[in-house]
Amino acid sequence: MFKPLFKRLLPQTTASAHCDLPCGVYDPAQARIEAESVKAICEKYQANEDPEFRTRALIIKEQRSNLVKEHLWVLWTDYFKPPHFEKYPQLHTLVNEATKLAGASGAKGSADPKVAEELLAKIDQIAEIFWETKKA
Amino acid sequence: MFKPLFKRLLPQTTASAHCDLPCGVYDPAQARIEAESVKAICEKYQANEDPEFRTRALIIKEQRSNLVKEHLWVLWTDYFKPPHFEKYPQLHTLVNEATKLAGASGAKGSADPKVAEELLAKIDQIAEIFWETKKA
Amino acid sequence: MFKPLFKRLLPQTTASAHCDLPCGVYDPAQARIEAESVKAICEKYQANEDPEFRTRALIIKEQRSNLVKEHLWVLWTDYFKPPHFEKYPQLHTLVNEATKLAGASGAKGSADPKVAEELLAKIDQIAEIFWETKKA
Amino acid sequence: MFKPLFKRLLPQTTASAHCDLPCGVYDPAQARIEAESVKAICEKYQANEDPEFRTRALIIKEQRSNLVKEHLWVLWTDYFKPPHFEKYPQLHTLVNEATKLAGASGAKGSADPKVAEELLAKIDQIAEIFWETKKA
Amino acid sequence: MFKPLFKRLLPQTTASAHCDLPCGVYDPAQARIEAESVKAICEKYQANEDPEFRTRALIIKEQRSNLVKEHLWVLWTDYFKPPHFEKYPQLHTLVNEATKLAGASGAKGSADPKVAEELLAKIDQIAEIFWETKKA
Amino acid sequence: MFKPLFKRLLPQTTASAHCDLPCGVYDPAQARIEAESVKAICEKYQANEDPEFRTRALIIKEQRSNLVKEHLWVLWTDYFKPPHFEKYPQLHTLVNEATKLAGASGAKGSADPKVAEELLAKIDQIAEIFWETKKA
Ligand code: NI
Ligand code: NI
Ligand code: NI
Ligand code: NI
Ligand code: NI
Ligand code: NI
Repeated sequence: MFKPLFKRLLPQTTASAHCDLPCGVYDPAQARIEAESVKAICEKYQANEDPEFRTRALIIKEQRSNLVKEHLWVLWTDYFKPPHFEKYPQLHTLVNEATKLAGASGAKGSADPKVAEELLAKIDQIAEIFWETKKA
Repeated sequence: MFKPLFKRLLPQTTASAHCDLPCGVYDPAQARIEAESVKAICEKYQANEDPEFRTRALIIKEQRSNLVKEHLWVLWTDYFKPPHFEKYPQLHTLVNEATKLAGASGAKGSADPKVAEELLAKIDQIAEIFWETKKA
Repeated sequence: MFKPLFKRLLPQTTASAHCDLPCGVYDPAQARIEAESVKAICEKYQANEDPEFRTRALIIKEQRSNLVKEHLWVLWTDYFKPPHFEKYPQLHTLVNEATKLAGASGAKGSADPKVAEELLAKIDQIAEIFWETKKA
Repeated sequence: MFKPLFKRLLPQTTASAHCDLPCGVYDPAQARIEAESVKAICEKYQANEDPEFRTRALIIKEQRSNLVKEHLWVLWTDYFKPPHFEKYPQLHTLVNEATKLAGASGAKGSADPKVAEELLAKIDQIAEIFWETKKA
Repeated sequence: MFKPLFKRLLPQTTASAHCDLPCGVYDPAQARIEAESVKAICEKYQANEDPEFRTRALIIKEQRSNLVKEHLWVLWTDYFKPPHFEKYPQLHTLVNEATKLAGASGAKGSADPKVAEELLAKIDQIAEIFWETKKA
Repeated sequence: MFKPLFKRLLPQTTASAHCDLPCGVYDPAQARIEAESVKAICEKYQANEDPEFRTRALIIKEQRSNLVKEHLWVLWTDYFKPPHFEKYPQLHTLVNEATKLAGASGAKGSADPKVAEELLAKIDQIAEIFWETKKA
């Protein structure tokens, strides 16, 4: 996915969080970080047939997938406001699909790296909208 | 085991959960239970000026409000499916508003029982739709 | 908001919680909800031989069984008072057996739905006493 | 590795845990450790009127008191068996009182070090029975 | 602190995590994100004298500061290897000081934004070493 | 309450904790307790080929190993001060190695009781230094 230069310079200078004080800073990178981890876990799972390793991989993938869901839920409820949903009518569906892709019907229920890649692509779509709203 | 009629109409006949195996059972009562707690905490907060009690009340209200958000997010992502969102076009907005009402701009940020009542009313609207979809 | 009779008899009229402020509301449905989930997980485990699914089922069953224990412990310590234990001399043993049934010697250690059913029956016995004390 | 006598009598010779595999080792020291912390927090709270410090103390005391409850519940459910309850008929009441003393009506609800001391004394009574059963 | 262009383009393309499978990806941004939140919380705390808001701010600052500690500990134990500690003899002290600055003697114990800024500067020093080791 | 000499030398006289208020008490026994549990889990794992039991053992070993890491990190950051690191120049490396031994390259990644024993030996070395600093 293409990103304008402005976007590629951002994250580290705008590191952000999601504490619902609110502290006022948010960043879709938090969800993406965990989704990258999920993808790497799937790849290691496919490459290693040791049953102890595979069980550990599934335990940890379950946790990381859940973190993806939580980070996305925080963006949906705490960051995005009514005007955003008005301007981006697909936003509700997008976040709903992304969180489903991080759950039982997606990255939790599958150890296929391709499912994790679909999840990453969805998160990128949300991030695209997020950064547009930050510039606005 | 015999149960008197009164008892048989109570929670245990509709008990449900949300583990994303998924186990297949869900119930908006889980969100409502925590929201009832939030309301009771607000009432006790208003009736008690002891600073230690008030600090404890705020600590616990923060936790319970967060549980409301989590239970609602689970319904939105794990229980509700595309056909539900099609049939109830207000559903996305409803859940989004309910989770906002459980957060900083609602029950987390306020110790007014009326805010907790608004939250409860929103949860009831979601529950109404939920039970309709279960009957369908 | 109007509610049909069927709806008004459901969970939301008895919603309760357990925060140890205390907020003052408790409900054995919280333990039952998780035990229902444990039973459903066992059934799905028996019906599905896929090793990834089975590992996920055991991960989640461990969590849900633990929630059963926690909800019951809260009732035992935070809701039930000395007069209750006097009136119901079997109550200590009942809760102790129920929490053991949710642990290693019960629903944690077994994936047999019958064990989960025994757990549910014990929780119902506790609930029976609970609702009697609420009426008193 | 050589250890001076003083050291060899210390915790590491009786270290134990409570994971409900079960791993088979338990130790009332885990509850006592957190109760000691609760008492120290109360003492520091009474000695420091800075409102920020006091709020932090209440936040942390709430967490530590809860750990006391959890460690005691684990002993009650996972370590103690029917023959123990038969031999020590006061054991149910003792653990119930101890967990209540760690909650809202005890160390959670009060910042008085004396309440924490009562809690410690109750834990010692449970520990006394625990160590007797280990010798048996 | 000056950062070479290469560094400023990084994070979003190298999003990473810390699950100890290990998945193999790490990023000091995770610690920085929470430290930014801590700083923002301190600023809002100083600007708002409402006691309910201030209590909430302290509750949340405690949590966020702890996340900073956890993310740094993960880097210290899971990412950095003996050759790194050999090449950067100050690294142990640096991470130790940073985690102390996130604790009681730093950001937990103080609501002064300047303390959070010192924490951020320390994290940047760790990040500088981190990115050097990634290039090596 | 009277206690036999044997009992009075046991854990309760050295009970300690780690809450970062700070309450001021710490004890390496907390890390050792969880490491003992890890070792017992490994032994039971090797002695039992039932796949459900083995999966449960790996789930719980993952949790207990993580607790070891957390307890050691707390000692390293919250208890040990610059003069300690000056007096014991090996201390940084020792704690770093111990936490690595509790992670993926040690007790998390292996179900061999010998790995848990190595971890226990490392913890004992840290405890030795800890108790020396307490006497100083
Ligand atoms: Ni925030
Ligand atoms: Ni479920
Ligand atoms: Ni409550
Ligand atoms: Ni155990
Ligand atoms: Ni990882
Ligand atoms: Ni402490």
